[in-house]
Amino acid sequence: MQKKYVAEAIGTFVLVFGGCGTAVLDAKNVGVLGVSIAFGLTLLTMAYAIGPISGCHINPAVTVGLIFAGRADKKDLAGYVVAQILGGIAAAAVLFAIANGHTFGYDLKEGLAANGYGEHSPGGYGLLAGLLAEIVLTALLLFVVLATTDKRAPSGFAGLPIGLALTLIHLIGIPITNTSVNPARSIGPALFVRGWALEQLWLFIVAPVIGAIFGALIYRFLEDDEPVSHKSVED
Amino acid sequence: MQKKYVAEAIGTFVLVFGGCGTAVLDAKNVGVLGVSIAFGLTLLTMAYAIGPISGCHINPAVTVGLIFAGRADKKDLAGYVVAQILGGIAAAAVLFAIANGHTFGYDLKEGLAANGYGEHSPGGYGLLAGLLAEIVLTALLLFVVLATTDKRAPSGFAGLPIGLALTLIHLIGIPITNTSVNPARSIGPALFVRGWALEQLWLFIVAPVIGAIFGALIYRFLEDDEPVSHKSVED
Amino acid sequence: MQKKYVAEAIGTFVLVFGGCGTAVLDAKNVGVLGVSIAFGLTLLTMAYAIGPISGCHINPAVTVGLIFAGRADKKDLAGYVVAQILGGIAAAAVLFAIANGHTFGYDLKEGLAANGYGEHSPGGYGLLAGLLAEIVLTALLLFVVLATTDKRAPSGFAGLPIGLALTLIHLIGIPITNTSVNPARSIGPALFVRGWALEQLWLFIVAPVIGAIFGALIYRFLEDDEPVSHKSVED
Amino acid sequence: MQKKYVAEAIGTFVLVFGGCGTAVLDAKNVGVLGVSIAFGLTLLTMAYAIGPISGCHINPAVTVGLIFAGRADKKDLAGYVVAQILGGIAAAAVLFAIANGHTFGYDLKEGLAANGYGEHSPGGYGLLAGLLAEIVLTALLLFVVLATTDKRAPSGFAGLPIGLALTLIHLIGIPITNTSVNPARSIGPALFVRGWALEQLWLFIVAPVIGAIFGALIYRFLEDDEPVSHKSVED
Repeated sequence: MQKKYVAEAIGTFVLVFGGCGTAVLDAKNVGVLGVSIAFGLTLLTMAYAIGPISGCHINPAVTVGLIFAGRADKKDLAGYVVAQILGGIAAAAVLFAIANGHTFGYDLKEGLAANGYGEHSPGGYGLLAGLLAEIVLTALLLFVVLATTDKRAPSGFAGLPIGLALTLIHLIGIPITNTSVNPARSIGPALFVRGWALEQLWLFIVAPVIGAIFGALIYRFLEDDEPVSHKSVED
Repeated sequence: MQKKYVAEAIGTFVLVFGGCGTAVLDAKNVGVLGVSIAFGLTLLTMAYAIGPISGCHINPAVTVGLIFAGRADKKDLAGYVVAQILGGIAAAAVLFAIANGHTFGYDLKEGLAANGYGEHSPGGYGLLAGLLAEIVLTALLLFVVLATTDKRAPSGFAGLPIGLALTLIHLIGIPITNTSVNPARSIGPALFVRGWALEQLWLFIVAPVIGAIFGALIYRFLEDDEPVSHKSVED
Repeated sequence: MQKKYVAEAIGTFVLVFGGCGTAVLDAKNVGVLGVSIAFGLTLLTMAYAIGPISGCHINPAVTVGLIFAGRADKKDLAGYVVAQILGGIAAAAVLFAIANGHTFGYDLKEGLAANGYGEHSPGGYGLLAGLLAEIVLTALLLFVVLATTDKRAPSGFAGLPIGLALTLIHLIGIPITNTSVNPARSIGPALFVRGWALEQLWLFIVAPVIGAIFGALIYRFLEDDEPVSHKSVED
Repeated sequence: MQKKYVAEAIGTFVLVFGGCGTAVLDAKNVGVLGVSIAFGLTLLTMAYAIGPISGCHINPAVTVGLIFAGRADKKDLAGYVVAQILGGIAAAAVLFAIANGHTFGYDLKEGLAANGYGEHSPGGYGLLAGLLAEIVLTALLLFVVLATTDKRAPSGFAGLPIGLALTLIHLIGIPITNTSVNPARSIGPALFVRGWALEQLWLFIVAPVIGAIFGALIYRFLEDDEPVSHKSVED
């Protein structure tokens, strides 16, 4: 039973280490496109790796949204969320250790890929734009997760659209808030950066959870529909 | 029954919000390649998410082409097209609200990713080049949609080539017209930008529909053929 | 029966229009990475679209290699190759028409994405480097095609590794020869560019065919082996 | 029996020729993102091409990790590792021959994509950062390989997350060590570059093997768990 939680911690470690790691170590070379691809590939690879073990939420907002949609068990909420947060913190720690191994060390004022708005928005977007973007983008993530793992969707494929949806979400969201849509992804770096990152952290907990519930509500409205395509495989 | 229409509205929202959103908010960072990937990923993810509900046309030209090819029901034309256009307009509205949350606001003269030709072509291509490109590229889209969802094609995979075809189409078409191949994608931003965008809108309605019918005609010619590969799976 | 040939002509049209089109119209914006992705996506999408109709060779070297490996019928050689060459020429014509729709027209001295070596190599590589690269890269393409469509390989997936192999092949080969590995892809643009492009065309016919036979020979050596994985699906 | 070894040699040839080839010939144009995509695509394409023949380790660390996890046979260790190393050396030789076909030849001081730390780290990272990164990243690779080829994972898909995990790994690791996670990938170029590349080679043998065992240990802990998802297909 506890192994699901270990899987969630590992998966969130990979998401934060892979996504924020590319942002911190390599954004100079690969840009926003490379960082967006990296985040997407963490979710895509983990969906196939730990999906069969824990469902691969690796995101407290996803866990809340799935419980809300009746796809996950309320009893797992605390265990999943704690594991996700611990995985994210561990990843930020390992990432900081590696980044600090640079000849000139790593200055935490560079932000360790923490999320922000206003003067800490990468592209200069304010609080309301950040709030709106995080809500809409997390709703999109939940909608894709719920729809592509529905039993009428083709079996085995869900990890591809779910992972690639996270790439899409980062392509839009990085200029606004550096893209969170995931409180565990935001908490890890913020604990190291402190100051402004902790002060702004509330938005990256509140907005993704609201967005996740919103996305779940939208999908629930579509859920009872009869499938049009008769090609969907269910095993 | 009505839920199919809601699915089409949501899907078109995602296409315009994701694709035009990346263009408006992030093109400075991710370039034409990033925008092309974003458009492709909107269609790829929605194909898996709402494909089982509505078939995931999210494009009036696709709906027309599928009806023409006998793959969709004429009775759905009005409902699908209205839903798609409304979804595209809603996406342009949310996108404008977010873009406007920038410290300096958003100047609609920057174009909100609207489509254009002549002096409004990103790379300086004229009306005829735009017309030809939109027709050929929409024909390509329809050909891929019809062929990969044919019952002789391997089951479950169609969302991948269809979505990635849209990336390919944007790689070629963005310098010419900013790439439409989809009237609903063009109408949303044009309603906000007005002026030239509304004046040139006719091309991005007419050319995609002609291209879609052309693509459907080409595929119908190949349709009766006996399959060569006996590996295609049909469940 | 003749429909296979039409499918090959359409598929080769898409390969040349999509790949060379991105190179001619958009390389300034998307670079070698974007062009490499475009070429890969033409093959990936066509593999799913016309694979069930003609096998999706869309490349005379692939047709020769498959016949050599006993996977295609010698009787189809002429029909396939003629169709592929015609498709490539038609694509170059449409591409030239669109490119010429630029305010300043299109100067064929820019090369229309033709292949070359020596002073016409994009990165300054000589004849022998070009010959070696084209042989090795076409051998790689054939190896992937033969291996992933073998009956022991998982069913339905082959279009993904085959298409993405072409992206990989372009990432390596563009600086050397602009990457051919496909005589039909080279003939189309060369007929418009003339001069040096026609003089150097022999290499992009000879080397891919040699490479294809070489790749087929290598795979035939592995072909009789018993499968190790028992998870491969055969329908 | 010996054919498995030939497959491993060919696969490692492709990995080194494709990945290091893109780095050596094309990094100027496609950057770290292009090189990362190239490495990922070598593994993705070979997973589908030779996976059914040899399991597609094409990496001595993967072979060690799989033996450690009980997924490969100890008797194959020597044969697999020798084949992988020979394949990597052959690829470095062919790559050097092509690179040397440049008008100005190829100066081995440019590094032929060899791996390094300290003053030979692309981004200026020291020994400990390199060691830590190579261990964590190889552990990630093994975790993904073991999890996605587990019988509870969906059948046929594993090549996609495994290949794309290697892209992710390169996005993070290139600035640190140029990314090895694979002794055979490091040995080939180092034999040509000599000097510092041979002196630093130990790290790219030791760290990947430690990381692989670490990754296998982590996955073995999760292995006995009951699957949560009942959608996983096993044939």
